[in-house]
Amino acid sequence: MTPHETELTAETQTALERADAAHRHEALFSERAHNIRQSAVRDVFDISIRPGLVSLAGGSPSLTRLPLGLVAETAQRVIMDHGMEALHYGGGKGTLALRELICEIMAEEGILGASPEDVVVTTGSQSAQDIAAKVFCNPGDVVLAEDPTYVGALNTFEAYQVRVEPVGMDEDGLVPELLEARIAELEAAGATIKLLYTIPSFNNPSGITLAAERRQQIVDICREHNILVLEDNPYGMLRFDGKPLAPLRADNPDDVIYCGSFSKIFSPGVRLGWALVPKHLYRRFYLAAEAVVLCPSMLNQMLVTEFFHSFDWRAYLAESRAVYAERCAAMLHALGEHFPAEATWTTPSGGFFVWVTLPDGIDTYPLLHESIEAGVVFIPGAAFTPSDAPSSKLRLAFSGVAPEQIREGVRRLAPVVRAAVEANARYAPAAPAAPGRD
Amino acid sequence: MTPHETELTAETQTALERADAAHRHEALFSERAHNIRQSAVRDVFDISIRPGLVSLAGGSPSLTRLPLGLVAETAQRVIMDHGMEALHYGGGKGTLALRELICEIMAEEGILGASPEDVVVTTGSQSAQDIAAKVFCNPGDVVLAEDPTYVGALNTFEAYQVRVEPVGMDEDGLVPELLEARIAELEAAGATIKLLYTIPSFNNPSGITLAAERRQQIVDICREHNILVLEDNPYGMLRFDGKPLAPLRADNPDDVIYCGSFSKIFSPGVRLGWALVPKHLYRRFYLAAEAVVLCPSMLNQMLVTEFFHSFDWRAYLAESRAVYAERCAAMLHALGEHFPAEATWTTPSGGFFVWVTLPDGIDTYPLLHESIEAGVVFIPGAAFTPSDAPSSKLRLAFSGVAPEQIREGVRRLAPVVRAAVEANARYAPAAPAAPGRD
Repeated sequence: MTPHETELTAETQTALERADAAHRHEALFSERAHNIRQSAVRDVFDISIRPGLVSLAGGSPSLTRLPLGLVAETAQRVIMDHGMEALHYGGGKGTLALRELICEIMAEEGILGASPEDVVVTTGSQSAQDIAAKVFCNPGDVVLAEDPTYVGALNTFEAYQVRVEPVGMDEDGLVPELLEARIAELEAAGATIKLLYTIPSFNNPSGITLAAERRQQIVDICREHNILVLEDNPYGMLRFDGKPLAPLRADNPDDVIYCGSFSKIFSPGVRLGWALVPKHLYRRFYLAAEAVVLCPSMLNQMLVTEFFHSFDWRAYLAESRAVYAERCAAMLHALGEHFPAEATWTTPSGGFFVWVTLPDGIDTYPLLHESIEAGVVFIPGAAFTPSDAPSSKLRLAFSGVAPEQIREGVRRLAPVVRAAVEANARYAPAAPAAPGRD
Repeated sequence: MTPHETELTAETQTALERADAAHRHEALFSERAHNIRQSAVRDVFDISIRPGLVSLAGGSPSLTRLPLGLVAETAQRVIMDHGMEALHYGGGKGTLALRELICEIMAEEGILGASPEDVVVTTGSQSAQDIAAKVFCNPGDVVLAEDPTYVGALNTFEAYQVRVEPVGMDEDGLVPELLEARIAELEAAGATIKLLYTIPSFNNPSGITLAAERRQQIVDICREHNILVLEDNPYGMLRFDGKPLAPLRADNPDDVIYCGSFSKIFSPGVRLGWALVPKHLYRRFYLAAEAVVLCPSMLNQMLVTEFFHSFDWRAYLAESRAVYAERCAAMLHALGEHFPAEATWTTPSGGFFVWVTLPDGIDTYPLLHESIEAGVVFIPGAAFTPSDAPSSKLRLAFSGVAPEQIREGVRRLAPVVRAAVEANARYAPAAPAAPGRD
């Protein structure tokens, strides 16, 4: 046997051993592990950083107006002056100073008088959703969610073997009558409904906002059926015009778990979010948080606290709103200019996303590959519903790219969409008007 | 009605509403939520930062020799030069640069040739344990663990309704025969054993190290019974003398999930750890990580990578080992000087902890309150076992306090221990020699 052959044999040996281990270990996965899926958004994340591509995929905030010098100087100061604290373990709830700042921020959007004692700082707001699922959901329990809803939350809930049941929206957000009907239907079928997961302001992916006059109604319906509201509000402060709408939590401190985030108003790179939790649920919630990460990063907590104290974050948010408003307008204008008449889309009043609907019969998932060829990425609509059915929708994010890039991206995407619309009209059977439904 | 009366009524009203909500929501908790407990270590965490107390409780690393100026300067540079990346979202596995650094660090302790492709960066190594429980354990499944073991891991596993079954140790760590017997017993009773959770080097809380000659034997037993090894090795590099012992993972890439951490070798404040995962388990593991936090903090990842590249971390670890060796020696000496003859303790060869055993019949939990009165805190032994039985052990951490403080702490603790030993000898029935057991 030559040395080369020995090498091959050793390699084969390793491969065989691994195959054997893989086979043996297959039996070790938990039931929930089979529910853990790749998020389509994350799939596209890796692709979208390729040079030359225009990414309308990721919901990234614009950081271009952040005063990097001040952030850098603050980080340096925190480490020099308070390094022994910043580089150490902290308490599981987060620092009091940051929880106080969070209460100030929430006051700005209409949650008045929240106590820092009811806030848990989390590693991004996604982890607050993970904790909520952990603390409240047994396998098979139902979580209600807007249809469509945030794909990351779907992944988080599914990891706990939760059934996510979609509830319809119209242009004013969740429809109270549809929510009541859905609850009745599920209760009649013996389901245990634990939470309503909602993104009431500038819903991800649709950009739709729950109308002010529906907000109390939604909470009341949930209260009546003993369903907790899990309100995810990362974009609430980013309303283009006027004051933010008061969150569902504002007047309902006992029935709503509110999730906020520094990712959209400051930086996703510090991975800091929070949950404002009803007093009677706080202890279990925070202990569950602690069981996962012990404590949020002290360094990042102190950096955010010091930075927000040393800069005019209200003015920065006003600037950010103007940036996003301009980008949204650029996208809406480009869509009007380049997209075929058969496509429709939402007109968001804040947030990061426009939601495009193509004619029935088109599946936007295969279009993704063609659009990558054309130099642009988006997220296919199917990612945002718990069902596996094909979707004729697509999410376009205007938040992270400059207006000229947005125009270029829409321009590149238009022929792909146009071709799909034409092929669909030519080959698909004409959709019959559904009788009894309008 | 006076305004004062109205106010009282409103307050009463709020309290009544909250009580009602608390009552209604009690039914919403998941089954696992009832298993989520306060960690005794965290209980004491809040107490131990009171001024004047000597804390021998928390397993905090010593940061006094960290070059804070260089850390601060690095943070500033990362933000100034790479802020758009550092403050943004990153990939779910962690950055390639950090995963490469992690492979270099692991090589230093005997894991050669690990691929960055098999590493997942996590938010502290506790979250790697959380992910392992999530991916592998159904409610009722068994995880084997050393007796005693890390309280944080117990909390994490219990949050997944896992049965943690202790396996006995002697002064050379886990006893292979006891492991086999325990497995046989559990299998005979129909249990599904998924993982062996082990801290082989300088076990937390006992300070005991698994002897080199037992390591392969332990993995082989687990492999034979199709049990994955979850190796938690935060202290592995902190052996006082000589080279680190090769981790269980070193020669067993397919059967061991290895957890490492920057908390003990650099800083807990950045909340960064990692898991080195067998190739065939990697995808599920990393998707589960992503479902919780999306990605680890980019800022902290880039800070750690840059910092380790710009400073001689091997020399720093050598210095750290000397610091901990000196502190350990101070503690052992003080124990010899002040503790009663009835107390025994371990002599660790690395890590952060000494484990003290008092005579049978003493419960160290109530002693904690007396010791706080005396100006010193420790962690009672009962925290480190899954059972609720009282324990005559206590964990003393020497890692985070200077030698003179250690001596003062032991001096303050000694009279409390002495009084307990005397009271126990006076009132407790003499423990009969257990027949047939030695």
